[in-house]
Amino acid sequence: MLALTMGEPAGIGAEIAVKAWLALRETGPEFLLIDDADRLTGAPIARVTNADQARAVFATALPVLHRPLPVPAIPGHPSGATAAAVIAAIEEAVALAKSGAVAGVVTNPIQKSVLTAAGFAHPGHTEFLGELAGTGVPPVMMLACPQLRVVPVTVHEPLARAIARLTPELIAEHARITHAALIRDFGITAPRLAVAGLNPHAGEAGTLGHEDQAIVAPAVAMLRAEGINATGPWPPDTLFTAHARPTYDAAICLYHDQALIPIKTLDMAGGVNVTLGLSITRTSPDHGTALDIAGKGIASAESLIAALRLAAQLAEHRRSQS
Amino acid sequence: MLALTMGEPAGIGAEIAVKAWLALRETGPEFLLIDDADRLTGAPIARVTNADQARAVFATALPVLHRPLPVPAIPGHPSGATAAAVIAAIEEAVALAKSGAVAGVVTNPIQKSVLTAAGFAHPGHTEFLGELAGTGVPPVMMLACPQLRVVPVTVHEPLARAIARLTPELIAEHARITHAALIRDFGITAPRLAVAGLNPHAGEAGTLGHEDQAIVAPAVAMLRAEGINATGPWPPDTLFTAHARPTYDAAICLYHDQALIPIKTLDMAGGVNVTLGLSITRTSPDHGTALDIAGKGIASAESLIAALRLAAQLAEHRRSQS
Repeated sequence: MLALTMGEPAGIGAEIAVKAWLALRETGPEFLLIDDADRLTGAPIARVTNADQARAVFATALPVLHRPLPVPAIPGHPSGATAAAVIAAIEEAVALAKSGAVAGVVTNPIQKSVLTAAGFAHPGHTEFLGELAGTGVPPVMMLACPQLRVVPVTVHEPLARAIARLTPELIAEHARITHAALIRDFGITAPRLAVAGLNPHAGEAGTLGHEDQAIVAPAVAMLRAEGINATGPWPPDTLFTAHARPTYDAAICLYHDQALIPIKTLDMAGGVNVTLGLSITRTSPDHGTALDIAGKGIASAESLIAALRLAAQLAEHRRSQS
Repeated sequence: MLALTMGEPAGIGAEIAVKAWLALRETGPEFLLIDDADRLTGAPIARVTNADQARAVFATALPVLHRPLPVPAIPGHPSGATAAAVIAAIEEAVALAKSGAVAGVVTNPIQKSVLTAAGFAHPGHTEFLGELAGTGVPPVMMLACPQLRVVPVTVHEPLARAIARLTPELIAEHARITHAALIRDFGITAPRLAVAGLNPHAGEAGTLGHEDQAIVAPAVAMLRAEGINATGPWPPDTLFTAHARPTYDAAICLYHDQALIPIKTLDMAGGVNVTLGLSITRTSPDHGTALDIAGKGIASAESLIAALRLAAQLAEHRRSQS
């Protein structure tokens, strides 16, 4: 049993939750939705008060922990009035996971600007989850699809600043957290990490930039000295080919688009966002609130379904090792 | 009829030239190879002295303009002694194309470090071709595969320097040359250009970096004012998805890996390098000299075959418009 948050009520969260239940009701994984039950349409709804009840009804109705919104959600038009409920749903899902009532948390996309305006002090979902379920290391974002797993070392910052902020330690820290998560959550006994270079051709021995030798190579050396099977810096353009992908379990990437371009080029819909380094299992679909198509019934639940399936797998790996 | 250069004699050029002829002898496109005929094995060889002779024999033998090397080529071990012959083959191929004897030039990969040590003063193949067959604009590199065409605005330089060197004019100049080439060489009457952003999410209205608004958006505005159908800056991570790719004819990318990661992720073997802005048609396979596998008989000719096929198409579009 997983807990799924409402996300931004003006977005596509409720619609794709219903679609995901329609797709998964017979096969699982089972999940309960934390949302305002009165606004859900398109499937039989069962109000439940705990995970056991959710389990009992899942095959015949979408189980909902009913948390009423103070104002009706208007598709495409987020309201600060619902911000507290959005945040509370995340907190409740995490609490359920920490107590063991659910095996993991899947989050629907939030509209960060609305939450920020309402006083939400965290840069994003991931950092908030780090506060709620941290383990003493920074939460790390992984994007995963069937063909590829990528972990960006820097994420939402200007590219020039991201380059300036790279250090061997920052790269090594992300690689260590990834290494541990591949063992614990993905069930990979001896993970292989490929560390991408920064410059074209990974700098061609320094002729195309110094960072690959000065920053990336020392990170790889540190990791190897710790017994982690890391290689690189690899030329970024050939690291994600069909030939290269099977040679590693995760690519450690240095900036947002180095990680996100290849995975979205391969698999726009099936990509799943996984947060590594938490005390709980957490995944989310790899898309936003899609305000432009909210309420039209045309949103695809494919990424959410992939996120639910992956969360169930990760939680099972974690359970079997504890 | 196309002219194919020898490229680095210690690399895989001769091997893939023979394999390409075996694959294309019945269907075409026809080509002649400028190389040392005595070192070629694996196919019947016909020494020819011009394109007409090459045309006459192509179905039964690989036509070769015999240009003897001063020393034997040793696979995997480039020699400065062959540098002059490598360069002369490029010059001769371009001269044949400029005279109209052949419809276009396809170049095998060169080993730049060897040529540079022997006095070759150009940063690379593309710049040399710009000298030999320029049209008053800088030669521009395009990578093309069946699903995607990309044009990097900056290429072989450190990523931080590439970012610092971006200007609206530099982006617009590459877009203009691409626009003209899509019409003239690719036969696309009304080309659609998608200009990538620089920062994550194209800067999210300035919160993730100023360059998208300060540099990329003005370039797009300039192009549109000139009547060129350019759009952007687009978020880089979603620009190359299966959903987005059909919406444009070429993506104008700001740095090497922004262009090369998606195309190599999609199609490692079939990518073709096309030089835009020359007075002649020129393509090349999208790989290097592969010294590590030279002489082993295991090199794939797939990219060279794609380069020959595309060169023939481009030359035909150009011919039909002149």
